[in-house]
Amino acid sequence: MHKEILEDIGEKELINRLAKFMPKNQVSDDCAFIKTKHDNLIINNDSLVENVHFNDVTISPEDLGWKSVISNISDLLSSGSRKTIGITISLILPTKTEWVWIEGLYKGINKALKEYGGIILGGDCSKGNQKAISITAFGIQGELELRRNACKPGDTILTTGIHGLSKLGFLIKNKINLDNDISLKKRLISKSIEHFCRPKVYPNFLKNLLKTRSNKKMKRIGCTDSSDGLFQALQDLARASKCKAIINYEKIPKDKDWPSGDKWDEYYFFGGEDYELVFSLPKKWAKKLSNLDKNINEIGFFTEGEPTIEFNESENNKLLNNAPFKHF
Amino acid sequence: MHKEILEDIGEKELINRLAKFMPKNQVSDDCAFIKTKHDNLIINNDSLVENVHFNDVTISPEDLGWKSVISNISDLLSSGSRKTIGITISLILPTKTEWVWIEGLYKGINKALKEYGGIILGGDCSKGNQKAISITAFGIQGELELRRNACKPGDTILTTGIHGLSKLGFLIKNKINLDNDISLKKRLISKSIEHFCRPKVYPNFLKNLLKTRSNKKMKRIGCTDSSDGLFQALQDLARASKCKAIINYEKIPKDKDWPSGDKWDEYYFFGGEDYELVFSLPKKWAKKLSNLDKNINEIGFFTEGEPTIEFNESENNKLLNNAPFKHF
Repeated sequence: MHKEILEDIGEKELINRLAKFMPKNQVSDDCAFIKTKHDNLIINNDSLVENVHFNDVTISPEDLGWKSVISNISDLLSSGSRKTIGITISLILPTKTEWVWIEGLYKGINKALKEYGGIILGGDCSKGNQKAISITAFGIQGELELRRNACKPGDTILTTGIHGLSKLGFLIKNKINLDNDISLKKRLISKSIEHFCRPKVYPNFLKNLLKTRSNKKMKRIGCTDSSDGLFQALQDLARASKCKAIINYEKIPKDKDWPSGDKWDEYYFFGGEDYELVFSLPKKWAKKLSNLDKNINEIGFFTEGEPTIEFNESENNKLLNNAPFKHF
Repeated sequence: MHKEILEDIGEKELINRLAKFMPKNQVSDDCAFIKTKHDNLIINNDSLVENVHFNDVTISPEDLGWKSVISNISDLLSSGSRKTIGITISLILPTKTEWVWIEGLYKGINKALKEYGGIILGGDCSKGNQKAISITAFGIQGELELRRNACKPGDTILTTGIHGLSKLGFLIKNKINLDNDISLKKRLISKSIEHFCRPKVYPNFLKNLLKTRSNKKMKRIGCTDSSDGLFQALQDLARASKCKAIINYEKIPKDKDWPSGDKWDEYYFFGGEDYELVFSLPKKWAKKLSNLDKNINEIGFFTEGEPTIEFNESENNKLLNNAPFKHF
């Protein structure tokens, strides 16, 4: 008899099954929430495994350290964290690991913490045959609760920054053939590598949200980050909030030198690791915010219906049949 | 040129080097501490790696889940946690992992949480070629701060329970030849396996400490757990508190059927994974507590001097030259 193994199950079903072991209020978001008498804490955990999420050819230990912190801070920010308290670091390392690698990793970690706040709150180091970095990050919940399940029909969908650049950087670093017919601008190449190796987050996002809010009763906002790609982010919001996302293809912000074509759309929508914020707001609030912050663009809206994603022009919908970015 | 690798460095030196990347107040203990306006949080992180800390032959997934929670709760208790809030779970699993294994692991995790309190606060699952379970646990700091560096010369050294049983259980489960001349009592065999597979902790420890305290100004107590063995626990206390431990060999509590001999002393002192509490108290407090709780025994005292361990009868000191239990 064939015993059911992880491979048979798939990521989505695995998450569903594991959710049954957890309290219901901890399931929908990337982060977990602890209520204390004063501040509420946001907790996030993210692991990077060698030859799954990174390898020594593609990324330096310092960049990897930076990125492992960013991926956690991005999750905290997309839950409405107003301050990163710190992180714990759990390392698994082969005994042949060079000390300079470990030193580089910690340098990158501390550089990111210096930039965005927070300290190292201890950790653990074990031997193993494959490098793995597991970081747990702690933030303090700000005034606005940003949650995947808080989008509403009628909300405008917005995103910070530009997607796909990290994926392009990854492909360039791995020397994977992109498209023989296209010669990429040098500027785009270095920008993409920068996005892949040293992604940034938006610590002012929460401040600008509060600055443009007209009604203090509005406290819950639909939000996630695009660590698994723009498509996955939209799908997570649609599913958790039980509404349909309509995306305006023309409005999607692309780099001015980004080539056109199906392949390039695929990189854009399914690329992942951009750590941009994907969120929804009532129309007026969305308008005010995108006027205030030029890094933020309106790209569509939520409506009642099945929790799916559609483009407003049907010819683009074939794109959405492609497989999304997979960590597992 | 030979580049320095992890193997060359050794565990102690690695901890020293990594400590340089961390804030000073986070270094001495297993746990980290977060001050909030109301409650102070204690955070602990512990990883178990396949074929380093466990394997499928020796321990069932359910026992492993139980034990991975216990090792974290034990660290929280030995820092003075009055309540476990919850844990995050970061799993790395090969794609060939059977679903029944994962299910068993989570059952064991939830069983331990049901017994000792706390909920699952989310987590993360990644693929990898070797199973690893990394748990981060959160507790609330109680009235007494239990810290490795709080032992004082003149303090009595105490320990809960009996050491070495978990090591014996491990040897039996691994079918490693113990000692051909000795036939172990059935009772001791099953007790040892129980200690190895389903170790317990002491949630009433803090309550009993407070019950027997005569002076409310006494808030800091030297304490750690024996997860790396009794010898390592004593050494950690002596080093962090900068005083010398004198151990009375005759007073050390052993199972009534525990065989005698150098080998058995080695299992006792260097065995590890017993999760007993090793701590020190002013004389009177120690007396009161050991009278109240029959699981607690006085085993020696701290005195001024080099941070080492000695037996009160010098003939036993040769034992201490043996290598301690190593996780790395």
